[in-house]
Amino acid sequence: MAHVMWHLYQFPICPFSRKVRLLLSEKGIGYELVRENPWEHREEFQMLNPALRTPVLTNPERGIVLIDSRAICEYFEETVDKSPMINGPATNRAEIRRLVALFDENFFASVTSPLLEERMKKRLIYRQPPDGKILRETIRLANDYLDYVDFLIDHRPWLAGSTMSLADLAAAAQISVADYLGGIDWSQHEQARGWYSVFKSRPSFRPLLTERMDVIQPPTHYGDVNA
Amino acid sequence: MAHVMWHLYQFPICPFSRKVRLLLSEKGIGYELVRENPWEHREEFQMLNPALRTPVLTNPERGIVLIDSRAICEYFEETVDKSPMINGPATNRAEIRRLVALFDENFFASVTSPLLEERMKKRLIYRQPPDGKILRETIRLANDYLDYVDFLIDHRPWLAGSTMSLADLAAAAQISVADYLGGIDWSQHEQARGWYSVFKSRPSFRPLLTERMDVIQPPTHYGDVNA
Ligand SMILES: N[C@@H](CCC(=O)N[C@@H](CS)C(=O)NCC(=O)O)C(=O)O
Ligand SMILES: N[C@@H](CCC(=O)N[C@@H](CS)C(=O)NCC(=O)O)C(=O)O
Repeated sequence: MAHVMWHLYQFPICPFSRKVRLLLSEKGIGYELVRENPWEHREEFQMLNPALRTPVLTNPERGIVLIDSRAICEYFEETVDKSPMINGPATNRAEIRRLVALFDENFFASVTSPLLEERMKKRLIYRQPPDGKILRETIRLANDYLDYVDFLIDHRPWLAGSTMSLADLAAAAQISVADYLGGIDWSQHEQARGWYSVFKSRPSFRPLLTERMDVIQPPTHYGDVNA
Repeated sequence: MAHVMWHLYQFPICPFSRKVRLLLSEKGIGYELVRENPWEHREEFQMLNPALRTPVLTNPERGIVLIDSRAICEYFEETVDKSPMINGPATNRAEIRRLVALFDENFFASVTSPLLEERMKKRLIYRQPPDGKILRETIRLANDYLDYVDFLIDHRPWLAGSTMSLADLAAAAQISVADYLGGIDWSQHEQARGWYSVFKSRPSFRPLLTERMDVIQPPTHYGDVNA
């Protein structure tokens, strides 16, 4: 086994950590997982990242601390040539980064974050049942994004163009967490489902699909690479 | 006057548009302002950016549409050599992007966004008075960020190191909007004030300080480059 030098602070259904894991794996970079629940505000973690958010990627031997998933991805894009994920002419690279922002910010705010609140934090921290009205609204909003994925995949093989890019990794990371938490209804989204099932069978994605978040169970189709 | 080919869709106190304006100006790129209130969901604007957010930067002659302020800044960093703003070795570039994310995401969510809601949207859209409790809380949170700026400036001449970078532009853009909306108490922040006053007198910043947002007036110190 290669000498592990990167340590990724994360929890299994942090979508930003998933994007980083997909990128590291596609680029063939070894890393070790460190379990971190950012909402516990662990003092040692706050020293590492005053913003108290996952992911944080450290390399203790070289004294490197990388924070923010987009900054982390740009770092490896700049330092590792293998499997470029922000590629092509400048306008193409801008389109990739637009879609990364769309999923990291808008999809996360409308879908992933409320699902994490209702299905994870209420269960693990507040010991409350989820709010059914909020859950229905997130599923409805997720549907709008899947329509947009359908539309993009009707025009291009991958979200940002002719090759796989960080846009696909960002979208798959967010959607996979929403799917884990029961927020995705795939029935009306043939193109999106086709695009996502290609991902599910990639070696970079497989380990994510077998991990579980404490007592929270995903729906049965979640880990099924043929679903 | 140089031929203007870039059109920036924005409103005067959109912090992300301000960051882009500072960058364009530092790099010597001409642009024209197009006034856009994203909350009006103008149909033509939605066709341009389905996420319905400012800034959007277009170049109609070359058929380019750039969306998301970070994607826009990376685009000009890649295509224009003058005044590099994401510079140095890869770890330094990661530190710049970490700080950009800190101000674009955390400062915006805790300070700028609630101030825009309370002082701008409630005035212009909902015709309601601001909520004093929320205003006091944003000022308190802004104070924590200014403490962090003080700390950084104690150790480095600019936020991310020895030269001005996109981190400084992102921070100054957010802080300037918060300052416009009365959210900044400068009294206990000598280092942050010194750093900010250097910015205020830069040619790239001066035009921003003289613009006004409709009926909303900034405090008297806001536009004063000696304050
Ligand atoms: N822009 C950041 C976002 C990171 C983020 O929001 N992480 C969440 C977990 S998914 C977090 O740590 N939230 C704090 C909390 O839950 O207390 C990134 O891309 O890394
Ligand atoms: N990540 C985006 C954020 C853009 C953003 O949130 N813009 C705000 C204005 S400051 C917006 O358009 N909000 C929609 C609204 O107010 O309706 C960027 O950096 O461009």
